[in-house]
This record gives sequence, structure tokens and C-alpha cells, in this order.
Amino acid sequence: MSTNPQPSDVTVLGLGPMGRALAGAFLAAGLGTTVWNRTPGRDAELVARGARPAACAAEAVAASPLTVVCVVNYDAADAVLRADAVASALAGRTVVNLTADTPERARDTARWAAGQGIRYLDGAIMTPTTTIGTPDAVLIHSGPEDLYREYEPVLAALGGTHTHLGEEIGRAAAYDVALLDIFWTAMAGWAHAVAVARAEGITARELAPFAQGIGAILPPVFAETAEDADSGTYSGEGNPLTSAVSSMAHIVAASESHGIDAGVMRAAEGLARRAVGLGHGDDGFVRVAEVLSRR
Amino acid sequence: MSTNPQPSDVTVLGLGPMGRALAGAFLAAGLGTTVWNRTPGRDAELVARGARPAACAAEAVAASPLTVVCVVNYDAADAVLRADAVASALAGRTVVNLTADTPERARDTARWAAGQGIRYLDGAIMTPTTTIGTPDAVLIHSGPEDLYREYEPVLAALGGTHTHLGEEIGRAAAYDVALLDIFWTAMAGWAHAVAVARAEGITARELAPFAQGIGAILPPVFAETAEDADSGTYSGEGNPLTSAVSSMAHIVAASESHGIDAGVMRAAEGLARRAVGLGHGDDGFVRVAEVLSRR
Ligand SMILES: NC(=O)c1ccc[n+]([C@@H]2O[C@H](COP(=O)([O-])OP(=O)(O)OC[C@H]3O[C@@H](n4cnc5c(N)ncnc54)[C@H](OP(=O)(O)O)[C@@H]3O)[C@@H](O)[C@H]2O)c1
Ligand SMILES: NC(=O)c1ccc[n+]([C@@H]2O[C@H](COP(=O)([O-])OP(=O)(O)OC[C@H]3O[C@@H](n4cnc5c(N)ncnc54)[C@H](OP(=O)(O)O)[C@@H]3O)[C@@H](O)[C@H]2O)c1
Repeated sequence: MSTNPQPSDVTVLGLGPMGRALAGAFLAAGLGTTVWNRTPGRDAELVARGARPAACAAEAVAASPLTVVCVVNYDAADAVLRADAVASALAGRTVVNLTADTPERARDTARWAAGQGIRYLDGAIMTPTTTIGTPDAVLIHSGPEDLYREYEPVLAALGGTHTHLGEEIGRAAAYDVALLDIFWTAMAGWAHAVAVARAEGITARELAPFAQGIGAILPPVFAETAEDADSGTYSGEGNPLTSAVSSMAHIVAASESHGIDAGVMRAAEGLARRAVGLGHGDDGFVRVAEVLSRR
Repeated sequence: MSTNPQPSDVTVLGLGPMGRALAGAFLAAGLGTTVWNRTPGRDAELVARGARPAACAAEAVAASPLTVVCVVNYDAADAVLRADAVASALAGRTVVNLTADTPERARDTARWAAGQGIRYLDGAIMTPTTTIGTPDAVLIHSGPEDLYREYEPVLAALGGTHTHLGEEIGRAAAYDVALLDIFWTAMAGWAHAVAVARAEGITARELAPFAQGIGAILPPVFAETAEDADSGTYSGEGNPLTSAVSSMAHIVAASESHGIDAGVMRAAEGLARRAVGLGHGDDGFVRVAEVLSRR
């Protein structure tokens, strides 16, 4: 199955749901795609579609100028990339690490890659597997601009919107962490709302249309309050922190009256009450960002 | 200023930002609108537009067959409605309580109203003041269906979509609490994301366009996972709880490495880890709703 590497050939390390989606999109774009996964057998469908299987990670990375890594976290990525055989095979080649982790781990990997003569870009995928290869995919990248431009045409096979956020290698991970923070906190709110609604005899399906309305309010609220946060003005007009704490107290009371854990909302309410206690009751809720960072 | 009450006359008690928006919409619809607020002076602009001021709450409720109450919470609503003079003036009339609080407080007020011969509907406003009187307003109501139908034409002056959720008087408050749960938890996530981004040198304005993308993902996720929650299947395909806890741990680490409080995410992560510990690691995140309600 081995052929001479082409400039557009690409290797994908990690064939979880996301790695398989990435490899599938590269294949669909007609790129020579080599695949490898720690646990064998995950490549069957991709190989049936024309992907080249590799016996080990070192063989996989040797097959292409560009290796895309997408595993669970940087402990896993390190376990794969920092093995001696893999590191030597990667020297002079390029790694785009689409694994999610903290900015600090991205910086650490970039330092290691520089020491090995490996060209390194870090990135993050902001949308589900089903968006990959479609216009709905959203990917963010950081690291050397020229290296990003060199591989932009290959990465474009993943579809959607790609944004190079800057040369600082931790930047994509920093955005990723902040954005996942919003997503998973909101999901915790949704799961809690489902539990409270159920205790009140309301099904999740009954709640969902209204929940979608709440979801639709969020994007404009994010845009407006971003201005406040950057200017430090935090206008609470029409919706001050004092109103927020009142709502939050109702949520905690309604939840706990049904024996439902309200720990997430209690933590959020505590922050809002601290902001009120610090004299910011007339401000908007995002003033809480200051309380979180207080020294 | 006093005239004979018309069937479409309406009284608004409480002239905070929302009460003023409600009274303004009634006036704009040409309804005879009487207004009162505990602290005097809040009615000036409304009176200039043709609203009838009242010297006290009892005088205000006597002026119209329908009284809409919108104050901070049910402690405040009780303080206004349950005063002897107000309660007697309300006998035989209708109250629509658009104040937010818990379902239990709505039920308690309905019991009190029944004892006083006051016809009672409970409701909640799901959208900001700026939507009132526009097609974007969303209001929910509960209580006797015939009473709701009788005042539907007056309430329609508030604009937007009105939904009668059922006769059980606590139902609107139950939806309200569940929906505010989603909103305020998501806002806590956004404020935290702003703090983490800032510590990484990213402004809220830089983060906002991507945050809007995350916001846009939520409505379809709510719809899909509602099916899971009602059927108890919680499919985690493509995004299992094990992935969620991994992301959550990155968020906590990135936050705390900058000295930023991560209490909300720690609480959410703990729930997700408990769900994994209970054997649901392959399930979707909304399985957490079961853990929250565990007995
Ligand atoms: N799924 C999504 O919708 C989505 C969306 C955006 C971003 N992401 C990110 O994409 C990355 C991959 O996610 P995923 O959905 O594919 O599933 P995942 O469960 O996060 O990762 C599974 C992959 O990690 C590998 N792995 C785990 N531990 C390893 C180790 N010690 N050494 C080598 N490989 C190891 C697995 O290999 P084995 O098969 O051998 O266990 C498998 O290939 C994650 O960072 C995730 O946050 C996913
Ligand atoms: N603002 C929004 O965007 C929005 C959206 C949806 C729902 N709501 C709900 O609408 C209701 C009203 O909200 P709001 O925005 O107008 O502001 P608010 O700050 O929640 O309520 C202010 C109103 O409550 C009155 N009040 C407080 N304590 C009182 C007491 N003990 N006795 C009598 N009146 C008392 C205030 O009178 P004084 O002027 O005398 O203090 C004022 O009229 C709340 O339940 C809120 O949750 C608001």
C-alpha cells in the first residue's frame, strides 16, 4: 500500500470519533491519508474507503509531511508523539495537534517540538464530529504564521471556517478552554433544568422549545456584555446583579425543595452575591468576571 | 383623572424596569392604564404618556378589572397584595402575577387568592424588557383556562408569544425557574470564560464571535438531548461523559493556574464524574440530570 509521499499527503494519529471524522474528510477531499490508532481495528471503515493503515505510529508519521494528532488529551498525545521512534521520524516534518487541553500543555509541546526540529502548530476543533468536512466546522489554530499558511490548503479539506489566532502557540487552546467553559457550564444548567422540570411534572421535550428560546438569547447577550467587560463599565440597566441573585435564589430553593442537588447554582449565586457585597449590585452580571479574578 | 372602569382597563403594580415596560405596552395599545409603585416618582414618564397615577395600591387595583403585578419577588408581591385594603378591593377582580419566584410561592398565592374571592392567574416573562410590546416577547401563563381566555386579548397588548401551559397554577413558575436555571448557569460560564480568556491575554470582544458560535450550538443540543432525557437512553455517541470530564478538568486547571476561582466548573465536573463513577461513562452528558435527582 506504500507510495512516495506527496506534499498533500496527511497522517492522522488517533481514530476516536473525531479522528475518524478528520481522516474521513481528508479522504473525501482526495488526499493520500495514512491512519493509526493505539487500539487496533478502529481504521477498518477508513481503510475500506482508501486510507493507508500503518503498523505503528512511527510508520504512520513517516508516510506524510503533515501529521494531524487528535487524541483525548496531551497526556495521550505525549505518549504517542514523544516515543523515540516517532520523534525521530517527525524531525523536519510538521505536526498539527488538534487534541484539546490547556494552553500550558500546548506551550510545553511546542518547546519539546522545537528541541526535536519538529515544525509545530496547535489547534482546536470547536464543533461536533458531524460538522467535519461541512461548512459548519469551526477550527482555530495558533503558531508560526508561515507554517499555518503552508498547510492551510490541506487543513481546508476539513471544511468550514479556520482562523489563525496568532503566533503564540497557547492561543488556540486558550480560546478552546474558554469556549468549552461556556458550553459545559451551559450544559450543566440544561441538565439541572431537566431535573427540576421533571420534579415539577414537566418533560424535557415540553421544556425544550422554551430552552431553545433561552439559547437564542445568549449570542446577543455575549456580544453586548463583551463590550461591558472590556470597558469595565458593566451596565446593569434593565437587568442588574440584584435581580440575578434573586432569580438564582429561586432556582436553588425550587431545586432543593425537590431534593435536587443545586451545587452548581449555589456556586454561581455565591459569586453573584459577592459581587453585590463588593458594591456592584447595580452592575450587570458579567461583573462577576472581576470577582472570579480577585487577588 | 378618574373615569368609569372599562373591561379592557388594566392596572400595573410595580414600576421597576419590567413593570414600566408592561405599562408602556398597555398604553401603546390604547388601554386605560393605571399605575402604582411602592416608591413614588417611578410613574412620571408613564403618566406623561397618559397613564393614570394612583395614590395607593388599593386605589390602583380598584380602577381596573385586571391587575398585573410585576415586582421583584413574591415577598414583595405579598407585601402589596395581601394588605387588607388591597385584598378587599381585589375581591371579584382578576390578578395576573408576572413576578418571578418558585412554583411553591405561586401555589401559595393562588390558595390565598381563592380564600379572598380573587380570580388568579400566574405567569412569567421569559424575555428582556426591550422585547415587551414587540413580536420578540415570550410570556407563559398558568391557571384556570377560562380566566386566561377572558384576559388573553388584554395580555396580547404585551406583544409576542403567550402560552397557557395548563391549569396547575405553579406550572409557569416551574418553567420559569427551569429556564432561568439554563440562562444564569450559562451566564456564569460566560463570565468565567471572560475571566480565563483575559488571563490569557484575550479580550472579551475577541472571544465573543466564537462564544456566539457556542451559543448557536446550544438550541439543537437541547432539542436532541431532550429526547434522550425523556426516553432515559442518553446516547453519548460522539460525545460521551468521559470526554466531558476531560474537557472540564482542562477548564478547571487552566482557570486555577491563573488563580481564578473555578467553583462552578468544579461542581459541574463533580456531577459528571459521579455519573461516570455510577457506570455511565459512555452516556451523554444529560445523564447528569439523573445523578442530580438521586435519592
Ligand atoms: N467528539 C467531538 O465532538 C469533539 C469535538 C471537538 C473537539 N474534540 C476533541 O478531539 C479530541 C478527540 O476526541 P474524540 O471525540 O475522538 O474522542 P476521545 O475519547 O476524546 O479520544 C479518543 C482517542 O484518544 C486515544 N487515546 C486515549 N488515550 C490514549 C493514549 N494514552 N495513547 C494513545 N491514544 C490514546 C484513543 O485511542 P484508543 O482507541 O486506543 O483508546 C482514541 O483515538 C479530544 O481532545 C476532544 O476534546 C472532540
Ligand atoms: N428586567 C427584566 O429584563 C426581566 C425579564 C423577565 C422577568 N423579569 C421579572 O420581572 C419582575 C420585575 O423585574 P424588574 O426588572 O422590574 O426589577 P426588580 O428589581 O426585579 O423589581 C423592582 C420592582 O419591585 C418592587 N419592590 C421590591 N420590593 C418591594 C416591596 N417589598 N414592596 C413593594 N414593591 C417592591 C420595586 O419597587 P420600588 O421601586 O419601591 O423598590 C420595583 O417596582 C421580577 O420578578 C423579574 O424577575 C424581569
